Amino acid sequence: MLSERALIDQIARRAQGTAPDLIQGIGDDCAVIAGPGNTVWLLSTDTLVAGVHFDLAWHPPRLLGHKAVAVNLSDVAAMGGAPRFLLLSLGLPATLSSVVTEEILHGLQESCRDSSCLLVGGDTVQSPVLTLSLTVIGQHTKTEVVYRHGARTGDLIWVSGWLGSAAAGLELCRQGLAAHADFSPLVTAHLAPTPRCRLGRELSRRGLAHAMQDISDGIATDLAHICTAGHIGARLEGDLLPCHPLLPPAAERLGLAPLDLMLRGGEDYELLWTAAPTETAAILALAEEMALPCRQIGTMVELPGVQLVQRDLQGTPTSVREIAYQGYDHFPANSL
Amino acid sequence: MLSERALIDQIARRAQGTAPDLIQGIGDDCAVIAGPGNTVWLLSTDTLVAGVHFDLAWHPPRLLGHKAVAVNLSDVAAMGGAPRFLLLSLGLPATLSSVVTEEILHGLQESCRDSSCLLVGGDTVQSPVLTLSLTVIGQHTKTEVVYRHGARTGDLIWVSGWLGSAAAGLELCRQGLAAHADFSPLVTAHLAPTPRCRLGRELSRRGLAHAMQDISDGIATDLAHICTAGHIGARLEGDLLPCHPLLPPAAERLGLAPLDLMLRGGEDYELLWTAAPTETAAILALAEEMALPCRQIGTMVELPGVQLVQRDLQGTPTSVREIAYQGYDHFPANSL
Repeated sequence: MLSERALIDQIARRAQGTAPDLIQGIGDDCAVIAGPGNTVWLLSTDTLVAGVHFDLAWHPPRLLGHKAVAVNLSDVAAMGGAPRFLLLSLGLPATLSSVVTEEILHGLQESCRDSSCLLVGGDTVQSPVLTLSLTVIGQHTKTEVVYRHGARTGDLIWVSGWLGSAAAGLELCRQGLAAHADFSPLVTAHLAPTPRCRLGRELSRRGLAHAMQDISDGIATDLAHICTAGHIGARLEGDLLPCHPLLPPAAERLGLAPLDLMLRGGEDYELLWTAAPTETAAILALAEEMALPCRQIGTMVELPGVQLVQRDLQGTPTSVREIAYQGYDHFPANSL
Repeated sequence: MLSERALIDQIARRAQGTAPDLIQGIGDDCAVIAGPGNTVWLLSTDTLVAGVHFDLAWHPPRLLGHKAVAVNLSDVAAMGGAPRFLLLSLGLPATLSSVVTEEILHGLQESCRDSSCLLVGGDTVQSPVLTLSLTVIGQHTKTEVVYRHGARTGDLIWVSGWLGSAAAGLELCRQGLAAHADFSPLVTAHLAPTPRCRLGRELSRRGLAHAMQDISDGIATDLAHICTAGHIGARLEGDLLPCHPLLPPAAERLGLAPLDLMLRGGEDYELLWTAAPTETAAILALAEEMALPCRQIGTMVELPGVQLVQRDLQGTPTSVREIAYQGYDHFPANSL
């Protein structure tokens, strides 16, 4: 079986074709289509499958509805746009209780209301496995769209929030530790992530991002997308990667390495972007305004790839290793 | 478990909300959103699930790719629009051969090319069951969109092509009779239906349809949608319903009633529309131009519901029965 990246490359090759109003096809968080005047439409689709992306054994159905919307809104946030419309395709097992279905729909409705997004279409089908497939239509100003490409040598790399929280939260759920109140922020990061719509819009509006994408597959993969799209490289500073204060104790409890969770863990739905060093003060001011930590974690360099640098207490590099595309893959090669 | 209609009603209730540029939300074949100038965007999503909508035991994967596109294009055709863009969400079992995946993508690519539609985005996820979820974005002129509502008392009811072919084709596949060359047009109707994009656009452009929708769930249900949307009723003439010449012998071989297949069988993806009696000559001329049979099968009446009238040889009604919403339901009540 093909890896997810090989498969997407194959789909992209087969999808070649142009249209005067198609600004961006496959290859970014959203497709971009010219809208009225200076506006553009942003289109993206994301699917959650039971047993792969969630488990109803621990995922409250209402929060699942929230998450299905969040993972789609996050793609619009990553281009700096505002979500407008959603289409839902719901695959329901015949055995699923209607209470669960209603709770999922309730969560969807709440998230739509909170994000001023309207559910405008849908399809319901029977399916042996509960599947929530959503398509989001966002809107933006043509000249303000932030793409994956666009990063420049010397740009600083920024990330919002914390890394690895959702992956740790998932593992806590899997190991039956979700009820452990001390770890609840991590569990919440997995069950009901918050898409960074406002941050994405402000970064875009204020011109504080050269390239941007959301963290869905882990920073080692998502940063590699920015590098590949911009024909450029990245140097991450291991000591600067931000984690929630509860990540180290949770990782210890789980028998996992915090750094692995931060680099490879998917589904944080934080924003990852690059910006000129001269914008640092403006970004930090925005972060304060939003009460959302935003941290500089590395630098864009000419050498392709994603290098992780670790240093000793004196700041001397002790190791430099290549980590591009080592994040979460829906189709790992070892699943052959 | 809720019936499909009850579920869609519930989703529609939860989706209430308006926006100045939202012309039609849930409740028609597509959502309609204002585009640049006098244009509008048409949005729809449709999903095919293995074991529910198709079976790879007899469905060649390339034709499955074609069908996944066709069922989506059909929704755009039913509003009279032109398909422009597609987004694909592909759920793939880890055990699926990459040859099958490539063939599906090949079929998708061919259908996109044939319909001048571009694949602009996608998502690939692992799934225990092969699932193809597509979202189509069509374009149309605002004043020419044909909705489900709009039928008027006295309108004639029209249908393109044949009824019941796809349902018979599916049953032939299920019973191992698909290789029977005599029945191949029926089998093809199931494996690779042809969306009526050109017909829909011409009916719309020439103003030959007051209300329209495609036949996906069987005419008994799809015509009921037109009735409900227009607060009106329909009287179908049993003797006028068109079937392929092979349907009666195939139905006999299958031990099924041809009339049941025609009324309840889903997935024909033909167009169903109503028009003023004065347009009859223009519609028949268009049908001849397209080399596609279009037949008048009944009349819109004031009395709500869908009545099926059967007559004796002298034309005297021998039975009148209510058949609204008796077509194919993805969630039949007896699956409780």
